[in-house]
Amino acid sequence: MSVTTPQGFRAAGVPAGLKSTGAPDVALVVNDGPLDVAAAVFTGNRVQAAPVQWSRQAVADGRATAVVLNSGGANACTGPEGFADSHRTAEHVAALLEASAQDVLVCSTGLIGVRLPMDTLLAGTDAAAAVLGADAASGEAAAHAIMTTDTVAKTASTTTASGAVVGGIAKGAGMLAPQLATMLVVLTTDAVVDATTADAALRAATAVTFDRVDSDACMSTNDTVILLASGASGIEVSLEELADGVREVSGVLARALVADAEGASHDVHVVVTSATTEVAALAVAREISRSNLVKTAIAGNDPNWGRIVAAAGCVPESVAPYDPAQLSVRVNGVQVCRAGEVGEPRELVDMTPRETLVEVDLAAGTATGDIWTNDLTHAYVEENSAYSS
Amino acid sequence: MSVTTPQGFRAAGVPAGLKSTGAPDVALVVNDGPLDVAAAVFTGNRVQAAPVQWSRQAVADGRATAVVLNSGGANACTGPEGFADSHRTAEHVAALLEASAQDVLVCSTGLIGVRLPMDTLLAGTDAAAAVLGADAASGEAAAHAIMTTDTVAKTASTTTASGAVVGGIAKGAGMLAPQLATMLVVLTTDAVVDATTADAALRAATAVTFDRVDSDACMSTNDTVILLASGASGIEVSLEELADGVREVSGVLARALVADAEGASHDVHVVVTSATTEVAALAVAREISRSNLVKTAIAGNDPNWGRIVAAAGCVPESVAPYDPAQLSVRVNGVQVCRAGEVGEPRELVDMTPRETLVEVDLAAGTATGDIWTNDLTHAYVEENSAYSS
Repeated sequence: MSVTTPQGFRAAGVPAGLKSTGAPDVALVVNDGPLDVAAAVFTGNRVQAAPVQWSRQAVADGRATAVVLNSGGANACTGPEGFADSHRTAEHVAALLEASAQDVLVCSTGLIGVRLPMDTLLAGTDAAAAVLGADAASGEAAAHAIMTTDTVAKTASTTTASGAVVGGIAKGAGMLAPQLATMLVVLTTDAVVDATTADAALRAATAVTFDRVDSDACMSTNDTVILLASGASGIEVSLEELADGVREVSGVLARALVADAEGASHDVHVVVTSATTEVAALAVAREISRSNLVKTAIAGNDPNWGRIVAAAGCVPESVAPYDPAQLSVRVNGVQVCRAGEVGEPRELVDMTPRETLVEVDLAAGTATGDIWTNDLTHAYVEENSAYSS
Repeated sequence: MSVTTPQGFRAAGVPAGLKSTGAPDVALVVNDGPLDVAAAVFTGNRVQAAPVQWSRQAVADGRATAVVLNSGGANACTGPEGFADSHRTAEHVAALLEASAQDVLVCSTGLIGVRLPMDTLLAGTDAAAAVLGADAASGEAAAHAIMTTDTVAKTASTTTASGAVVGGIAKGAGMLAPQLATMLVVLTTDAVVDATTADAALRAATAVTFDRVDSDACMSTNDTVILLASGASGIEVSLEELADGVREVSGVLARALVADAEGASHDVHVVVTSATTEVAALAVAREISRSNLVKTAIAGNDPNWGRIVAAAGCVPESVAPYDPAQLSVRVNGVQVCRAGEVGEPRELVDMTPRETLVEVDLAAGTATGDIWTNDLTHAYVEENSAYSS
């Protein structure tokens, strides 16, 4: 049910001592081939962590043998020395696997602005390489080792129409507002595909999965989603089939990220319909998902549709043309706002389920867009004010 | 020290019963002339409350005799009936004052999506008109009657170089991210000015005061700032002098709004320097002030500069050109990030003062911009999840 579910992959996760808690903090995912196809998408943040800078150039040729990941430190804002640390990590892992450093991708997550303790990290990669396994437990161990404020490990897998398998692991619970990518995600497949297909499938999948979760409007410096293809199944798949499989696994992982978002008590699905374009629908959905007043209202089980309408009204008309007097809102199926005015009584809305469905009808066209977010709770404030992360 | 400090104005604030608590909820501010000059700026939200729609057209001729304000209900998203309610309120007050309804501006604040109880409101305006006074206590009473989640009434006044007086009252503690205006503010002056000058002075002042506070990135449907000029001092002032006075009073009131922001434990001043343009500086400052991770870190007395840098990195290069590797950050005077890398130890930063100064140097030009915001606390979540507002 993770990166080791497809054939041709081994993984490991071990405690190296980067985290003071002694929890697992170094992971390896190795592609044993026969193919070494790879694709990746990275954060849209202009401040890019050293591992992002390293991995971006390393994956540019569409090939990778392994991914080394650590929690317990983001290696961001660490200057040329930090980049050298990522490079050295790749070289060290390459030597362990008898590969080229240029084929080792690096991912880090944790506090920004602190150098990684390299001796501890490299010793951890030695330990991880020593226990690499193709079994389910090894994939699970890798998923555990990349957790930060996550409360559960995130894994998923699926089988495509012609029998190839796609699997994945992900971490992320805060600073979760990806553009092009989110948090640390490693996807694997045993399908036979080339790098161009892998890249196209990955971008198509992330655009409708990771790009559509937004826990707190805060975009990370380290977001990375990597897809590795081993070809070990011998099954050739089309772009559409691969994209379907990658999208299914990505969708499960993206939903798991929101479900485990820091302190959340509701998963919130904001669906905007009857927009002029998908861009317009997504802009309105994102503005609503980012409203602290909407998010706190939901935390308080309050279907406060005035705050939803006010958030929608903040999107410029040039981005999302619609008439505010025609806008309607349903919360958990109850039409609380009809054509810009009071609809059904808000008391009819049952806010007790974990999942809250916010539907906004712009009455302007036929396009639709949705964003998954979560509510804003005391626990979010506690987690993000009491600890550096 | 408020709207009644300048000559030529009377005010009142009374409990009409719109609030279940019995607190004051209806206010009147009356300009007794000899001039009846008025200017106003309104929310940039596309969803505009009925009183905003009414007042926008009523003030278009640059004249107004009175402003009637109520808390306890925003009269937003209430359709044509809600607009008729605002119109009827203006007509009723006009009859009380022997004025024209077109010279009565209307402001409302409170829950969106609920019709106002008109009998209660109109009876309240009768009561307010009966106790109108030019004394300090009457201005204070008006300031109290427009409070919602505010914990203190906001008032201010100043005397310009040539002796004219500018005064004002304001309310606002949440949904505070104005564009062109903020919350409900009534400014008065006894200077002799024409409508064009009043409008220009008001816009110049709000651009650098109310437009630069951002408590929670949520823009209201009812924001209104009104300036009334009576000319009662007989003192003619230039645009510059009036703008200075209006800016001073607006600045005091804007800072008071942030200081009283819902649940805040720190007032945060984000100053961005060495930007290519003021627009670029303000965009970076606003992105930082809107980051929930920055705001929760400050609530926890944590000078987590990585989150500040990550927020700055979310501003598109087309808006704010700068090199992330040259960006520096000071928190309360300590340079925690120097040219994109680790600077002084974050332990040196004293976060205990109420005011937190975040300085970001983009090393890209000579322009500066600043935003006042506040931290994100348990109390904010409590206030906005436990109560409909």
